[in-house]
Amino acid sequence: VSLVWFEGHIYDDEPLPIDPGDRGLLLGDGIFETLLVVGHTALWRAEHLARLENAARKLVLRLNLEVVGQAIKELLELAHETHVLRVTLSRGAGVRGLAGQGIKPTILVSLDSFDPKMIFQPVKLITSSIRRSTSSVAARTKTLSYLDNVMAAREATAQHAEDALLLNTDGFAASSTISNLFLLKSDQLITPSLDQAILPGIMRRALLDEAASLGFAPVERPVEPAELLTADAVFLTNSLRFIRPVTAIDELPMRSRNLDSFINCLCKLAKQQCGTDLRLI
Amino acid sequence: VSLVWFEGHIYDDEPLPIDPGDRGLLLGDGIFETLLVVGHTALWRAEHLARLENAARKLVLRLNLEVVGQAIKELLELAHETHVLRVTLSRGAGVRGLAGQGIKPTILVSLDSFDPKMIFQPVKLITSSIRRSTSSVAARTKTLSYLDNVMAAREATAQHAEDALLLNTDGFAASSTISNLFLLKSDQLITPSLDQAILPGIMRRALLDEAASLGFAPVERPVEPAELLTADAVFLTNSLRFIRPVTAIDELPMRSRNLDSFINCLCKLAKQQCGTDLRLI
Repeated sequence: VSLVWFEGHIYDDEPLPIDPGDRGLLLGDGIFETLLVVGHTALWRAEHLARLENAARKLVLRLNLEVVGQAIKELLELAHETHVLRVTLSRGAGVRGLAGQGIKPTILVSLDSFDPKMIFQPVKLITSSIRRSTSSVAARTKTLSYLDNVMAAREATAQHAEDALLLNTDGFAASSTISNLFLLKSDQLITPSLDQAILPGIMRRALLDEAASLGFAPVERPVEPAELLTADAVFLTNSLRFIRPVTAIDELPMRSRNLDSFINCLCKLAKQQCGTDLRLI
Repeated sequence: VSLVWFEGHIYDDEPLPIDPGDRGLLLGDGIFETLLVVGHTALWRAEHLARLENAARKLVLRLNLEVVGQAIKELLELAHETHVLRVTLSRGAGVRGLAGQGIKPTILVSLDSFDPKMIFQPVKLITSSIRRSTSSVAARTKTLSYLDNVMAAREATAQHAEDALLLNTDGFAASSTISNLFLLKSDQLITPSLDQAILPGIMRRALLDEAASLGFAPVERPVEPAELLTADAVFLTNSLRFIRPVTAIDELPMRSRNLDSFINCLCKLAKQQCGTDLRLI
């Protein structure tokens, strides 16, 4: 299934009438969010919409949350399995010129099938040649200018890995192309801090908030790549796959000890929202 | 006028039937070129198509140059004033996932009005807080992931300047959001080298090739921002505005001595192609 809400209509696997001047299409001038949908519920919906709002403020994009909420509502009524819901907001079509403002932002909300087998899947990484720039707006926001992530993911595929680890321009470990990075080291849950050219992940925030209750001290700071080698566990988080143990980076094996309590914790939080255990879908 | 060639049809200021999964729209996964059109001629057309081809190779995008050529031909027949012609190529719609390949690339060629008054216009710059990353594919290719340039241009507008100077992640002067950067220093024509996170500009190449005949030694190397202060001239080049003297950076006045021979030279080259003197349109 692929349904798209666009300008008040729902399109069923059909082309959308997009303005040829749309700055999302021409310049990657916009933002997006992806949410997992289980049983008519979009998980961590409030947090995703809050992040969308923050990103819109950063890019000075007008965002009508009421319209987005209505679009999500209409699509969720049509949900019947595990889906990925994507909210896309572009600056719309406007005058030519980079600094030009769109007349009216474009909102596009899509509902696609999502294979739940992808959740919790272990992952092998390679280190990308592409770095995340600490001065880049695109590196710390979920924007339509995603090409560097696309190219890093292609490097991974070419080297028979599932995803790529990106360092930042200061040489610290930042994230993967689609996920935040975590490591466990004795009683510390460590993740790159928000100044490290990373996205402020929703699952990242959830785990940091729960760490203490699981007996771990949450630590946000720059992470040296070499630290990953000696960690008790290295793992990735995102809103579609939750936690993925990293089994290797550049063919060096990584440990994944003590991950169960974190997986259980996210499953409990998800079940409170949708009534379903993610391990059973 | 705004005409768009898309999938074999010409759309006159109408919405385009775009696949909702188009990776250009969703991920900035594509490339583009902009050419100045004067009297049915797209200037430096062969060079722009060669750069498009190089960029397609870098991104592993399939490019049907015959189709692009046919689209350009059809649009040029409809040209009747000074236009900007833009060729956009995205990876098309495909399977989900960053590394996914589009089933069929999307080609979109547009013809819009262009006000020739913008050519040769002097420009005031501010220095952007955003830097061009030397490891970024997007920073050295004309891609649909243009957001950092958009945000830098917005910084310029907010500070009452027309464009922004971007340094690269090594701290050297790289380019503006839309133009290559040059300086004159006695008998040297200096511009950041291609390893400085810049686009390989068509006008940049043309000027470097002509420098010797104008009595200047062409020099491509890293450029310290402080060098701009003592240059005989600082100027920008791109395919729509040709040469723009930089009159100030961050309100520090810049010189623009000895630019006439370079402007004359580009005008001569353009006239050979389109028969018109750019200074008279």
